Amino acid sequence: MSAIYELVRDAVRNGRPLATVTVLAGGPVGAKLAVTPDGQTFGDLGDGNLTAQAVQAALPLLAQGDTQAITLASGATVFIESFVPPPTLFMVGGVHISIALAALAKVVGFRTVVIDAREAFATGERFAHVDELVVAWPDEALAGRLDARSSVAVLTHDPKLDDPALRVALRSPARYIGALGSPKTHARRLERLAAEGFTAEELARIHGPIGLPIGAKTPEEIALSILAQVVQVARRGRPA
Amino acid sequence: MSAIYELVRDAVRNGRPLATVTVLAGGPVGAKLAVTPDGQTFGDLGDGNLTAQAVQAALPLLAQGDTQAITLASGATVFIESFVPPPTLFMVGGVHISIALAALAKVVGFRTVVIDAREAFATGERFAHVDELVVAWPDEALAGRLDARSSVAVLTHDPKLDDPALRVALRSPARYIGALGSPKTHARRLERLAAEGFTAEELARIHGPIGLPIGAKTPEEIALSILAQVVQVARRGRPA
Repeated sequence: MSAIYELVRDAVRNGRPLATVTVLAGGPVGAKLAVTPDGQTFGDLGDGNLTAQAVQAALPLLAQGDTQAITLASGATVFIESFVPPPTLFMVGGVHISIALAALAKVVGFRTVVIDAREAFATGERFAHVDELVVAWPDEALAGRLDARSSVAVLTHDPKLDDPALRVALRSPARYIGALGSPKTHARRLERLAAEGFTAEELARIHGPIGLPIGAKTPEEIALSILAQVVQVARRGRPA
Repeated sequence: MSAIYELVRDAVRNGRPLATVTVLAGGPVGAKLAVTPDGQTFGDLGDGNLTAQAVQAALPLLAQGDTQAITLASGATVFIESFVPPPTLFMVGGVHISIALAALAKVVGFRTVVIDAREAFATGERFAHVDELVVAWPDEALAGRLDARSSVAVLTHDPKLDDPALRVALRSPARYIGALGSPKTHARRLERLAAEGFTAEELARIHGPIGLPIGAKTPEEIALSILAQVVQVARRGRPA
């Protein structure tokens, strides 16, 4: 039993999501199981069928970071508790939109990372409110850091910086990828990436022009439209 | 000429919107006119037709707070500059959603006012980040304060507080009115207000359930969905 608490503690410390399942009734009361997002389990509920049902019930709750009691098909009632670190929003470009977007995203519960190779943009004065400011080329800064709870907003307007970031994002399981630019700019961007071998299906993951269509005009309103879209994709999947 | 600068200074000091129109070419270069949102003018451009065209061009820009040079039908080029105070977002209810909504709205450039009659909710500790915290009944606090640039989000879930706020908002020119609650709660609210004599057209001004449908679950996400809708209505008018 205490081994599961160790697992939870380690997962939380290391920023890895984990769910615990505890039997409340209709089975071995108090038995516990831990479940990772990829379906790995630690411990069991003393019955393979019950354990399998519990894992199936836990995975969607874990994906949303939810905690609730559920009655399984077997009749057992289990308490499923999700331990998830804040999702991360990566902003490529130390631009004005990123200043506002980082401030908004913090309120909504995101960990915020701003990346820019240009030291004049990525300054501590402009981004004191950001969890992490990375002065590096976006592809290098993003490599290996994107998981299924990551969102990436590409905002420099400069293909030299935006395209490398998009290449890394498209090869990752990031749940949201968005790129700033007019429909024309976005069409050219898609052509360049298609010429490199990305398929239409892969490229369809990029939200471009970025953000929900709320008529945003100021950088702050554009930031708002982006964050609303990031949450929409996280909560509802890809919008129609 | 200097009389116009006095007007601008007074308007800005008192939080009233005002546009100035200056002839750049094709007319009496340097001539200036001030225009209020209701079409009142101060000064003139020395030609009734030119002045009328300038007012028609200034009003939509003033409504959006925009500044730009425009060539009128007469061939004259004028510079139209808008001086507008920040729009105000009134939040009724010192609830958790209001804490997040006030923080988000500040980033996007709104003046923020939170109103609650319940002193336990409307505390300075919870709302230190708000421009104005009013401990009063919502109808009294809102009376006479709502203009065409005001937005009102009614968030208490309590008809005793929400309904009086909505009555005042519906009788005002507020550009956005939204009310928290499920479709069922909102339907009952509309029935109560209709019984008091509000027409279907009047009641259609209320956005309920409040916020853009982004799948918001947490109070912070609900706040984000509300602010995105407030901006959408301000920028695009009532969404379809």
